[in-house]
Amino acid sequence: MQISLTDLASHLGAELRGDGSATITGLATLKDATAGEVAFLANESYRSQLSETSAGAVIVRPEHADEVASAALITANPYLAFARATQLFDNRPRVNTGIHPTAVVADSATLGAGCRVGAHAVIGEQVILGDDCEIGAGTVIGDHSVLGRQCHLNANVTVYHDVVMGDRVRVHSGTVIGADGFGFAPDQGRWEKICQLGGVRIGNDVEIGANSCVDRGALGDTVIGDNVILDNQVQVAHNVVLGEGTAMAAQAGVAGSSVLGKHCTLAGNAGVAGHLELCDGVFVGPKSVISKSIDTPGGYATGTAQMPLNEWRKAATRFRQLDSMARRIQQLEKRTKD
Amino acid sequence: MQISLTDLASHLGAELRGDGSATITGLATLKDATAGEVAFLANESYRSQLSETSAGAVIVRPEHADEVASAALITANPYLAFARATQLFDNRPRVNTGIHPTAVVADSATLGAGCRVGAHAVIGEQVILGDDCEIGAGTVIGDHSVLGRQCHLNANVTVYHDVVMGDRVRVHSGTVIGADGFGFAPDQGRWEKICQLGGVRIGNDVEIGANSCVDRGALGDTVIGDNVILDNQVQVAHNVVLGEGTAMAAQAGVAGSSVLGKHCTLAGNAGVAGHLELCDGVFVGPKSVISKSIDTPGGYATGTAQMPLNEWRKAATRFRQLDSMARRIQQLEKRTKD
Amino acid sequence: MQISLTDLASHLGAELRGDGSATITGLATLKDATAGEVAFLANESYRSQLSETSAGAVIVRPEHADEVASAALITANPYLAFARATQLFDNRPRVNTGIHPTAVVADSATLGAGCRVGAHAVIGEQVILGDDCEIGAGTVIGDHSVLGRQCHLNANVTVYHDVVMGDRVRVHSGTVIGADGFGFAPDQGRWEKICQLGGVRIGNDVEIGANSCVDRGALGDTVIGDNVILDNQVQVAHNVVLGEGTAMAAQAGVAGSSVLGKHCTLAGNAGVAGHLELCDGVFVGPKSVISKSIDTPGGYATGTAQMPLNEWRKAATRFRQLDSMARRIQQLEKRTKD
Repeated sequence: MQISLTDLASHLGAELRGDGSATITGLATLKDATAGEVAFLANESYRSQLSETSAGAVIVRPEHADEVASAALITANPYLAFARATQLFDNRPRVNTGIHPTAVVADSATLGAGCRVGAHAVIGEQVILGDDCEIGAGTVIGDHSVLGRQCHLNANVTVYHDVVMGDRVRVHSGTVIGADGFGFAPDQGRWEKICQLGGVRIGNDVEIGANSCVDRGALGDTVIGDNVILDNQVQVAHNVVLGEGTAMAAQAGVAGSSVLGKHCTLAGNAGVAGHLELCDGVFVGPKSVISKSIDTPGGYATGTAQMPLNEWRKAATRFRQLDSMARRIQQLEKRTKD
Repeated sequence: MQISLTDLASHLGAELRGDGSATITGLATLKDATAGEVAFLANESYRSQLSETSAGAVIVRPEHADEVASAALITANPYLAFARATQLFDNRPRVNTGIHPTAVVADSATLGAGCRVGAHAVIGEQVILGDDCEIGAGTVIGDHSVLGRQCHLNANVTVYHDVVMGDRVRVHSGTVIGADGFGFAPDQGRWEKICQLGGVRIGNDVEIGANSCVDRGALGDTVIGDNVILDNQVQVAHNVVLGEGTAMAAQAGVAGSSVLGKHCTLAGNAGVAGHLELCDGVFVGPKSVISKSIDTPGGYATGTAQMPLNEWRKAATRFRQLDSMARRIQQLEKRTKD
Repeated sequence: MQISLTDLASHLGAELRGDGSATITGLATLKDATAGEVAFLANESYRSQLSETSAGAVIVRPEHADEVASAALITANPYLAFARATQLFDNRPRVNTGIHPTAVVADSATLGAGCRVGAHAVIGEQVILGDDCEIGAGTVIGDHSVLGRQCHLNANVTVYHDVVMGDRVRVHSGTVIGADGFGFAPDQGRWEKICQLGGVRIGNDVEIGANSCVDRGALGDTVIGDNVILDNQVQVAHNVVLGEGTAMAAQAGVAGSSVLGKHCTLAGNAGVAGHLELCDGVFVGPKSVISKSIDTPGGYATGTAQMPLNEWRKAATRFRQLDSMARRIQQLEKRTKD
């Protein structure tokens, strides 16, 4: 990929200050960029690097344009412009055209125009793939599942039966969509399996990272809204509903039947207990547990803050005495009142 | 699947109140059920829906039978009856009869009657499958592993060598059984690998969710008791022993050599440190860490409860001062005593 | 495998006390070992078993040699000697010689001498494997990735494109290396994908457990140093750097762009937030979260210690009142000062 600065500015909707005929061949950080590369400033803490960068051009906000040693690509949202630039320079190899001869595709499956299917992939009965889907090597799609257009499942993904995806859904390797929810009825000390009869419905423009799980519903479906983004090793239990634009960072989890609003964010390894409702715009801190429903947008957290181990041990010991400490304060207050 | 209410009642061992000739074609929640569907009431908080449901019948306890608008299937344990009904209406597609031509099955492997093996599955040397096992597409079973009867490994499961499973074991996609335990000896700043020479033994009627791991033993086996149920992304380290009927929810983990009793429950993302013993009937709360052995049944927890982020920051700051706060209370008590 | 005690002592660099002609056929714990097996004592708490063991020989420190009922293999570091002995008795079945006929290997790939490739494995364009690599069944290696010598990827591993590994790297099943980092730019309530243009670089003598993830860099690479050991379900985000000899236990995670020094240890399910720096020799406790950079070696922790559920509920309630408790202590101090 090669592009002139003029063309790049036009593609990004940015104003160019500098020599538009210069050729750009890639992207890099302010620190590492060379003359043929474009860098960006989105985080103020790197601002001092603007004057020192060797980048051919830097994507900046208007107020920083004067500080750039090189050419400047000026835009109100440099991070967004950077995102668009990465799409231009995307270097991901595509699965070759067509269906690999070792792929096993059911006769009853329907593949849209331009679909590519990798080696040893398996596509089940009655599966429907929209146009331009890309299915990675070793990926298995269960019977009756339906994918929209331009979906991309990387290698070794597993999609069970009766999973429905919208358009432009991306799923990374090792992820499992539609496995049984964790449902068992106790029967005199034994667990009786509750077959999971529902499915999974995934909206448009969703991305799911590697080794994540979205379980199928017990009755009715598990639902992932449009533009939801899930990182690696995320767990979405049966009958969960994730609202549009909600984001879950790595190792986060939502237990069964909980409903999250739109534009919620779960930080890394955050968890939401089952059967709760979270309104739109809730942020849950790293490794925090939500155990009650939330109807006020904003941030929520549990846990304690980082301490050296020796000090932590003392505080943890005192935590076990907290109730007694509180009572002693009450007594002291009573005693000193007189 | 179609069944008359009379036959369904008989199958579930429930008493029928209503028209036994009505035809049932599926299951649904009280809220969503239509005339051809059966719903159930197991959780009191949905009780008000009994009089409004459009379900053709509802599975209820005797004391709620009068509140049901429709026909009632009366039983002492509605949740268990519901579990049995789901098995009746199970809609999971089965792997086709026989061994898929693309599967690679070692000549030395022994497959019982009625076994089905999916596309691109790989079955190693000397493997033995009991009757009626179902092996999903892309699943790999290592040399010398032995499965009992009616085991079901979904697609893309990996079983290493020398893993032994009982009857009716179900394993979901992406799960890895028998990978090396995490064993290394420090050698002057370097890690020396401890080869993991043991295996894994899994009892009867066990279910393991998606993307979980059960490591092989270092010396001797990792042992999963009968009727253990493990959710997704569960970690069971080398030489762990899980007692009969123990349950681990998603993202829970048990570190090396710990022994859990029967009927223990680990909530989501709960963890048990290594080399501990937990007696029967221990419950560990969500995201809680057990770091000492437990000899008294009951619930245990760590962590703090959910707070708005601003308030949490203040409390977390105070937690770091807890030891000093406790000392100040002592001094106050001394001072006010005189 | 059979070896005389004399030869075993020589192999382990241990001093033998006892009959060197005795034949050893395996390893076991002090408790379980029989006459043909060797046991070891690394942990003082098992010392009382020395006099009762039925082992043919025991690997011990000089100071314990006299307590051993059987023959003794005397060495300064019994755990290390044990590690070397496990390698001698390693019983793992190897992937058969050569390339399985069902494997799909690109014509442009280069495989070193002695490489073995399992059934249904897929090796992409321009991939280079060093000598004596072993690629498990169903494993997929993306285009342009390069592995050193004697690497061993177990079954159903996924390596994306442009991943570079050193020599003797071991990867367990289900692990995904090189999936996209979690990068999205907000755009008026929508997430815009940031293509992840970097790669992954892994050093020599690294081991990665099952179902772990190492994401590719956004710009530049994610870097795993020599002799790093990662357990199962570990998450390493984009552009993270792990220093030489660092260890992460199961379910631990490091968020984007954080840099860990050498010989750090993350206990089970520990987490490090993004954009931090940890110096060499940091230990993070189980399920603890690091949210600030660390420049002093030693242990760090968050969370609280295990309590019975009823007591925990009281303490957790008081934790929410901590700030008010601290203020009340201040007031009491003021009041009683006069």
